[in-house]
Amino acid sequence: MDADDMVLVSVDDHLVEPPGMFDAHIPARFRDAAPRVVRKDDGSDVWTFNGAEIPNIGLNAVAGRPKAEYGVEPTAFDEMRPGCYDIHERIKDMNAGGLLGSMCFPSFPGFSGRLFAAAQDKDLALAVLQAYNDWHVDEWCAAYPGRFIPMGLIPLWDPQLAAAEVSRLAAKGVHSVTFTENPATLGYPSFHAAHWDPLWTACCDHSVVVSIHLGSSGKLAVTAPDAPVDVMITLQPMNICQAAADLLWSRVIKQFPQIRFALSEGGTGWIPYFLDRLDRTYDMHRLWTGQDFGDRMPSDVFREHFLTCFISDPVGIQLRHMIGIDNIAWECDYPHSDSSWPQSAEELEAVTAGVSDEDLDKICHENAMRWYSFDPFAHRSREHSTVSALRAEAAGHDVSIRSFDKGRFEKQIGVDLGELERRATA
Amino acid sequence: MDADDMVLVSVDDHLVEPPGMFDAHIPARFRDAAPRVVRKDDGSDVWTFNGAEIPNIGLNAVAGRPKAEYGVEPTAFDEMRPGCYDIHERIKDMNAGGLLGSMCFPSFPGFSGRLFAAAQDKDLALAVLQAYNDWHVDEWCAAYPGRFIPMGLIPLWDPQLAAAEVSRLAAKGVHSVTFTENPATLGYPSFHAAHWDPLWTACCDHSVVVSIHLGSSGKLAVTAPDAPVDVMITLQPMNICQAAADLLWSRVIKQFPQIRFALSEGGTGWIPYFLDRLDRTYDMHRLWTGQDFGDRMPSDVFREHFLTCFISDPVGIQLRHMIGIDNIAWECDYPHSDSSWPQSAEELEAVTAGVSDEDLDKICHENAMRWYSFDPFAHRSREHSTVSALRAEAAGHDVSIRSFDKGRFEKQIGVDLGELERRATA
Repeated sequence: MDADDMVLVSVDDHLVEPPGMFDAHIPARFRDAAPRVVRKDDGSDVWTFNGAEIPNIGLNAVAGRPKAEYGVEPTAFDEMRPGCYDIHERIKDMNAGGLLGSMCFPSFPGFSGRLFAAAQDKDLALAVLQAYNDWHVDEWCAAYPGRFIPMGLIPLWDPQLAAAEVSRLAAKGVHSVTFTENPATLGYPSFHAAHWDPLWTACCDHSVVVSIHLGSSGKLAVTAPDAPVDVMITLQPMNICQAAADLLWSRVIKQFPQIRFALSEGGTGWIPYFLDRLDRTYDMHRLWTGQDFGDRMPSDVFREHFLTCFISDPVGIQLRHMIGIDNIAWECDYPHSDSSWPQSAEELEAVTAGVSDEDLDKICHENAMRWYSFDPFAHRSREHSTVSALRAEAAGHDVSIRSFDKGRFEKQIGVDLGELERRATA
Repeated sequence: MDADDMVLVSVDDHLVEPPGMFDAHIPARFRDAAPRVVRKDDGSDVWTFNGAEIPNIGLNAVAGRPKAEYGVEPTAFDEMRPGCYDIHERIKDMNAGGLLGSMCFPSFPGFSGRLFAAAQDKDLALAVLQAYNDWHVDEWCAAYPGRFIPMGLIPLWDPQLAAAEVSRLAAKGVHSVTFTENPATLGYPSFHAAHWDPLWTACCDHSVVVSIHLGSSGKLAVTAPDAPVDVMITLQPMNICQAAADLLWSRVIKQFPQIRFALSEGGTGWIPYFLDRLDRTYDMHRLWTGQDFGDRMPSDVFREHFLTCFISDPVGIQLRHMIGIDNIAWECDYPHSDSSWPQSAEELEAVTAGVSDEDLDKICHENAMRWYSFDPFAHRSREHSTVSALRAEAAGHDVSIRSFDKGRFEKQIGVDLGELERRATA
C-alpha cells in the first residue's frame, strides 16, 4: 500500500503536559499543592509535585530535532516542538505526519501515574489524578473529536478507587487506562494477588483495555552502572515480555475472561518466539506446575487477551500471522526518539512491501479501533482520513528538522555540534 | 533431512558431578576441604563446600522421567539416570539419542563456577577449580575421544589467574570456557571495565570461545515472589539478550576483534528482532551516544562474534538466514527438562522440514566444530557418526521413560502420581 493511502491510528504517542493544565480542573483547596512548572537556573523547565522535581527529558521530546542533538538532558518548553504540549500544534503535526488518530501516554507523572501515588495526602493525590484525567479527556482529546483515543490514569494505591475511576472515565467515553508492567516492583501486590480484582472487574465491565507501556515498572534494563546507554535503549522493548509472561500465567487471565491488555511500545518481532516458548513451557511443565488452560494452548490465550504494536518492525511484519493479524497495531511514538515522524508512513510503506491491503488496514487502524472502541469515522469520512488527505490539510506547516538553542545544548553535553553533524552527513 | 542421517553435535548439555571426582586431582593438603557429597535425612544427595550445601535439583536431571514427575525438589544420585553422572552410561545415552558430540556445562559449581569463587581461601579455590577442570578434561572427556567438546571453568576472582587457566586449558586442547552472563550482578567489574582484559586476551590468543549460559548471572527472571514458576521458565532464554546487548555495545568487542561468545541455551527465534533493534538503536542514537562500528552495522558485528543455539525453535529455523546460517548451532540440553532426549533428532526433523541439507549440517554439527575447534571425525568417520549409526551401537540400551522411587517423590510433592499420569495420557 502506498503511504498516501494509509489510514493511520497510533496506539502509542506521548504528550508533554503544558503548564497550567490543572487550573480548570483541580478543586480550589488543592490548587497550591497541585503540580506546577518551574524554570531552573540551567534554563530547563521542571514539574514540581510533592517535593519532587521531574525534568522534561530531552530524549522524550525530540520530534523534529537532528539526531546529533538527541540526548537525555533536561529541556525547556521553548526548546521542544510546540506539538509536544500544544493540542492545536499537535493536530498540525499529526496532519503533517498523516496521522488520523493517537493515544497519548503521560510524561511527568510516569507512564502509570506513580508520581501521584507517591503523595502522602491521598485526597490530594486523587484530586490531582482526576484533574489530570479531566484535562486529558475534556481539553486535550475533546479539542479535536475523533482524533484521540482517550486514556486515563488510575489510583495505583487503592484498587477500589482504581475501579471507581475506571467507571468514572468510562462514563466519559474512555476505554483505555495506563497501568504498570509490574506492580510488585513499585511496592504493590503483584499481578498474582487478588488485591487487584476490583480493577480487573471494572475494566471488564466497561470494555476498558489495560495499556502497559514499557518502562512503567520503575525498573530500567540496566545491566551495570557503567554500561553504555545503548544497552538500555536496545533492551527496552523486549523487557515488556516479562509483563506478558507474568500476566499470561497469572490468575488474572483465568479469572477474568474479558480482560484485555496492550503491550505498548513493546514491538512485535520477538512475539512468535515468545509464543512458541509459552507453548513449550506448557507442554513440558504443566503437569507439575499445575497450569491448566483447558483445550487451548497459551499462544491461543495470548491472542485473546493481548494487543501488540510496533513502530517499524520488519521481522514482526514478516511473521504477522504467527503473532495474530488481529493482535497487531501500529504506533508512531511521537515525539520520542524512536519515532520517524513526520516520515512514519513512508517508513511503514518500506517495511510492508507485499503485505495485503486487508492486513495493513488491520495493523494501521482497524485493530486499534476495535480493541479501544474508537471510531474516528463517526467524525470524518475514511476518504478524508488518509495520509494524503490529512497532509493536504497541513499544507504549509513547517516540519523541517531544526536545532533548538544550539549554544545551550552544546554547553550541556560538552561537544561541538558542528563536528557531530559532519559525522551525521559523512 | 531424515533424523537417521543427521550428525548431531550439541553445544549445550549438562553433567551432574559424580562423588569422588576430585580424588585423583586435588593436592593432598586440600583433600579435606574439597567439595564432597553428603546424603541428607530426606534421602537427597547434596554437594558441600566452603560451608554451603548445593542440592542436585530434580529439574536438572529429569532425562528419562515422566513429565508428571518433573519438579525442583532435591534428588539423589540413585534417582537419576546414571547417564547424568557416569561417563560410560552417558555415552550409551548419547548413542541411543544419536548424539555424536556434546559440550557439558557444570552443575553444582554453578554454570560459571561461582561456588568456587566464593571460597575465602583462594589457594583452595584455585586448587578445586583446577581439579574440576582436570577431571572434566582428563576423565570425563578423555574417556571417549572425539565425543566431547571440553569446557573449562575459570577463576572469576582474578583476571590474571583466569588468563593463566585459559592458557593451561588450551595446552590440554580446551577451546571453551564458561563465563557469567553478567559479572556485575556477581559483584565483579562489568563487561565495560578494562578489568577483564587479560582474560579476553588469553581467549583470543588461544581461540577459546567464551560460553555464556542462561541463568549464569545469579539473577533469575523472577517478576514477583508469588509468580508461578512458569513465568521464570518462559523468560529464561530471552534474558540472555541482556548479555548479548551488554557485550555488543561494550569495549570488549571493539578492543578484541578476535573475541567470540556463545549464547548457550538462549534460543534463536528472538534474534532477528534483536538485530533489527540493535541496528535501529545505532541508526537513531549513535550520534549522541558515540558508538562507532566504522562501516559495519551492529548486526554485522553480532555475526562476527556470537554463536547462538536452539533445542527446537521453529521461528529461529524459519528466520535462520536473518540470524546468520553460520551462527546457529544445535543443543540437546540433556539431562535437563527442556530436552527431548532420546527423541531429539525426531523433534529436530519435525521442525526443519524444507531446510536444505547444507543448512542443516551447519546447524547440526559444522558450526559447532568450527567455532569450538572440535573435530570428531579425526576419531570416527562421518558415516559412522550419524544418528542411525550411533543408535545401532546402543542397541538394547534401555531408554524407556520410567519413574524413580515414586513413593518418595509423591511424599515430597504431596500429590498422587497416578492422578497426574491419568491427566498426562488423557
